[in-house]
Amino acid sequence: MNRNEHEHPQSTAIRRWTMGSFVTEFGALLEDVEVVFESYGRLDRTGDNVVLVCHALTGDAHAGDSDGHPGWWGGLIGPGCVLDTDRYCVISVNVLGGCQGSTGPASLTPGEARAYGAHFPVITIRDMVSVQYALLRHLGITRLQLVIGGSMGGMQALEWAAMHPEYMERAAVIAANPAFTAIGLAYNEVMRQAIVSDPDYRQGDYAQAGVFPAKGLGIARMLGMITYRTAELFEQRLGRDLGPDGLDDFQMGRYLRHHGDKLVKRFDANSYLTLLRAMDLHDIGRGRGGVSGAFERINAELLWIGIDKDLLYPPEDLRQATELAARSGVRARYAQLSSMYGHDAFLLELPQLSQLLHPFLTRDAAVRQAVGDG
Amino acid sequence: MNRNEHEHPQSTAIRRWTMGSFVTEFGALLEDVEVVFESYGRLDRTGDNVVLVCHALTGDAHAGDSDGHPGWWGGLIGPGCVLDTDRYCVISVNVLGGCQGSTGPASLTPGEARAYGAHFPVITIRDMVSVQYALLRHLGITRLQLVIGGSMGGMQALEWAAMHPEYMERAAVIAANPAFTAIGLAYNEVMRQAIVSDPDYRQGDYAQAGVFPAKGLGIARMLGMITYRTAELFEQRLGRDLGPDGLDDFQMGRYLRHHGDKLVKRFDANSYLTLLRAMDLHDIGRGRGGVSGAFERINAELLWIGIDKDLLYPPEDLRQATELAARSGVRARYAQLSSMYGHDAFLLELPQLSQLLHPFLTRDAAVRQAVGDG
Repeated sequence: MNRNEHEHPQSTAIRRWTMGSFVTEFGALLEDVEVVFESYGRLDRTGDNVVLVCHALTGDAHAGDSDGHPGWWGGLIGPGCVLDTDRYCVISVNVLGGCQGSTGPASLTPGEARAYGAHFPVITIRDMVSVQYALLRHLGITRLQLVIGGSMGGMQALEWAAMHPEYMERAAVIAANPAFTAIGLAYNEVMRQAIVSDPDYRQGDYAQAGVFPAKGLGIARMLGMITYRTAELFEQRLGRDLGPDGLDDFQMGRYLRHHGDKLVKRFDANSYLTLLRAMDLHDIGRGRGGVSGAFERINAELLWIGIDKDLLYPPEDLRQATELAARSGVRARYAQLSSMYGHDAFLLELPQLSQLLHPFLTRDAAVRQAVGDG
Repeated sequence: MNRNEHEHPQSTAIRRWTMGSFVTEFGALLEDVEVVFESYGRLDRTGDNVVLVCHALTGDAHAGDSDGHPGWWGGLIGPGCVLDTDRYCVISVNVLGGCQGSTGPASLTPGEARAYGAHFPVITIRDMVSVQYALLRHLGITRLQLVIGGSMGGMQALEWAAMHPEYMERAAVIAANPAFTAIGLAYNEVMRQAIVSDPDYRQGDYAQAGVFPAKGLGIARMLGMITYRTAELFEQRLGRDLGPDGLDDFQMGRYLRHHGDKLVKRFDANSYLTLLRAMDLHDIGRGRGGVSGAFERINAELLWIGIDKDLLYPPEDLRQATELAARSGVRARYAQLSSMYGHDAFLLELPQLSQLLHPFLTRDAAVRQAVGDG
């Protein structure tokens, strides 16, 4: 479904839920937890027509188009789209640890006038899922038709399937592994060092000092951008083109600095670090007898989607993970996006992604209806 | 030839030549230029049995084993090795702009008590070659049997072939492109930003201030290490192994930080920036009617060696460059190293590299002798 076909983006409102206390996977107590979310479409009286959309590292709850603001998955969410808001109630939640409304390191420490900063506890993908689950129960949602996400969002979708097997029909995991890989740890470490080495980081207490580690976070984003795209794309789009200053003022450098500058205007550095750490710790096998043990818990149908030129999550790894899931008894299928964009294809190749998702959402429903299991 | 077969590494000495004035490609005057080099084996009376070895970004003139110190290409250079010091006089030169003896940003500005720092002029790969050429002429060398190098060293070998076509028999270009690519520019930009954003960089005048941008240079090296190796290697060697601090103290991060810390002890930050910029500006087509025009100048036989898992210089690009060179009239062949190491294979897969180089050096000589052209 092409975004241009939406003549009238549905109106919605950012919503906020005061969750209260939450104990993280590693035992830290967070009080006065707030959760920001958005919804598109109407919840059925049975409370079971819900699609949960999970966002990636620098994403937020604004997944769908609304109020004139395009969402990051606007092309997937809407009337007649693959996540059809005439049929589904689509919900997207800003993750715990984020900085777009939900409680995170930039939030004020309860009872104090200062932000958590670097004192925000270590959180995991499982903690993000636990908060989302509490929210959905609070909203009266009885069952999820689908949990879907790419990259860090895919990690959440996978954890959802392992943590709440009876609560969901399907999971679509895009560009994410069962456990974060060494190359992912490597890039995250360089990004982390760039941020914490910025003198304006101030051991995480930059907000109190009235400064911000913009250079460090910008460098982290520049590196991120390289890994989210492909060498071929950069070569075709920018190559060795020069900017106005000539000589060695390459457009490639300008492009990266531009993206670095853009992120620092909208994202908190401690939140970035908190989410990097959650990604580092992503391992569905932890405490479950390894990855196979985690797969054995899953009841949802699983669609695992790789991206052919993804540097961070090579498609062959995801195909093998799907095969392992299938051998562990999961109704798992693998599909692949083909894109010059690389990892970011999950945000950019929406018509193609819709084509992969459509049969996953509809064919199976038809089969279940046919056998009286719908 | 296995390094262990060298029972007695030949003795050599670091040598220094005071070149004097040098005008760079972009017109800057450098005075009192010093050039540090090493040689292995004896120069024939005819002065034409020379192999020139060009080093990469953080390399130096110590290519061969000597005086009990292993060289970075010790396994290629020595009696009975593919660069056989019983036959060849092998010479390696610390590049202009480097920091291991030759004039570079850490050198004192002539007549002043302070280092060039950020005032060192922009230099190019062609400038490195020009300085090497002047040195070789000064040493009475009449002809090169081979110019060889990997990565930035490969860029030099290629420029050598275009700049001094009548002075050399062969060029072996390993893991380098005819022009630096967009993905290379991208990684270099992130490394550059990491260094210049370090508050101890002081706009390049850190030496006068008695400080050093160790964090920035360390981060640059960490990122470099990622690109020089492969995801598969990191996964197999380090995976998600934890260090002594547990939780998220991943060995992967320790490994990168270790390499960052190691480099800052031996390398100058301004030199690193100067060489990054020289790589950025690498384009054999500049001022020559493009890459094809540059190839048309080449008389040397060309062996272009790609590395199958090289992220920075994908083998398919190098194969295509070889084909273009051949169409432009160059006696050019492509060969490939297969290695889990990725880009760094040119430093690590020396037996395999020897096997590729041996026929290139010997078969052609035999052919030329047979037709009386030796």
